[in-house]
Amino acid sequence: MSELTVSFGLKVREQRKQKKLSQERLALLCNIDRSYMGRIERGEVNITLEKLYELAEALDLNAKDLLPK
Amino acid sequence: MSELTVSFGLKVREQRKQKKLSQERLALLCNIDRSYMGRIERGEVNITLEKLYELAEALDLNAKDLLPK
Repeated sequence: MSELTVSFGLKVREQRKQKKLSQERLALLCNIDRSYMGRIERGEVNITLEKLYELAEALDLNAKDLLPK
Repeated sequence: MSELTVSFGLKVREQRKQKKLSQERLALLCNIDRSYMGRIERGEVNITLEKLYELAEALDLNAKDLLPK
């Protein structure tokens, strides 16, 4: 858990809500389980590049747009 | 190893060479060992977000600029 993972998680949550997706639905789209999605959004996980791209694709964004800075 | 990790590794190598840094020097700046840096550049590793930011900082770039797309 770090400033980076927390900002990243908030960004994921914000974008997910903007797209009107449930955590469950987004998790399903990314092939991860819902509890792991919760951990990502709370900034508890330092995800990998490949997962970043899967998340971005599920949210219909560019990976760059999901990075906090 | 995937299309993504390979493109990412090429980008890291290109930027490292542009900055005239050896693999060893860049590895040192990122607190990783040289063989791991070699694996990153060859696209053999799916690195984490935190490592992405450390690499970007060592290369004096924004993390977004290191992403292949």
